[in-house]
Amino acid sequence: MAPKRRPPYYAVIFTSTQTDDLDGYAEMSAHMEKLASNQTGFLGIESFRSLDKKGVTISYWKDLNAIRAWKENPEHLTAQQLGKQQWYQDYTIEIAKIETAYDLQTDCPPSE
Amino acid sequence: MAPKRRPPYYAVIFTSTQTDDLDGYAEMSAHMEKLASNQTGFLGIESFRSLDKKGVTISYWKDLNAIRAWKENPEHLTAQQLGKQQWYQDYTIEIAKIETAYDLQTDCPPSE
Repeated sequence: MAPKRRPPYYAVIFTSTQTDDLDGYAEMSAHMEKLASNQTGFLGIESFRSLDKKGVTISYWKDLNAIRAWKENPEHLTAQQLGKQQWYQDYTIEIAKIETAYDLQTDCPPSE
Repeated sequence: MAPKRRPPYYAVIFTSTQTDDLDGYAEMSAHMEKLASNQTGFLGIESFRSLDKKGVTISYWKDLNAIRAWKENPEHLTAQQLGKQQWYQDYTIEIAKIETAYDLQTDCPPSE
């Protein structure tokens, strides 16, 4: 489950289709997850991948500045370049402001 | 890939952990996806589930009114009830405003 976070906060929704050449991908992915989690403003990350090479990684951030700093992290820039050249056929990145969040227990969004 | 949509638009990020009792789940899930896609303001839906019963469904909508109407759809209310009683151990729902979107081709967010 997503950790409990209190809106407003931000998410980067990275939806991707992998290529057949995943050499080095698993190591880089694990390293990036660790590196992201040490960034200022990092709130969490979740990844899901189906058997057909499609997947999504949602990373959560305190604000847009935190997202910008992560995008420009030098090691992350190298990973992005490799991703484009080798690991991904296609991807979409959506930057989202989470305005409301609730779960099975709370059931309903907080009243506005 | 996510269909091309022009921000701003909204997403409902439904992150869930299933139970072991998935009787009726696949049929209901397919029916809900079809029903959602006929709602006013529906922009798309994508689901990913890992082998460990964790998954995410992201549905995309034109505005908050469209999300509210879908949440209150009578058939969807029935599905939500069954989900809570039978199919899900836990879930989190996050309502997000997508402010920026780009892809492998466009590479960078539009200048602000």
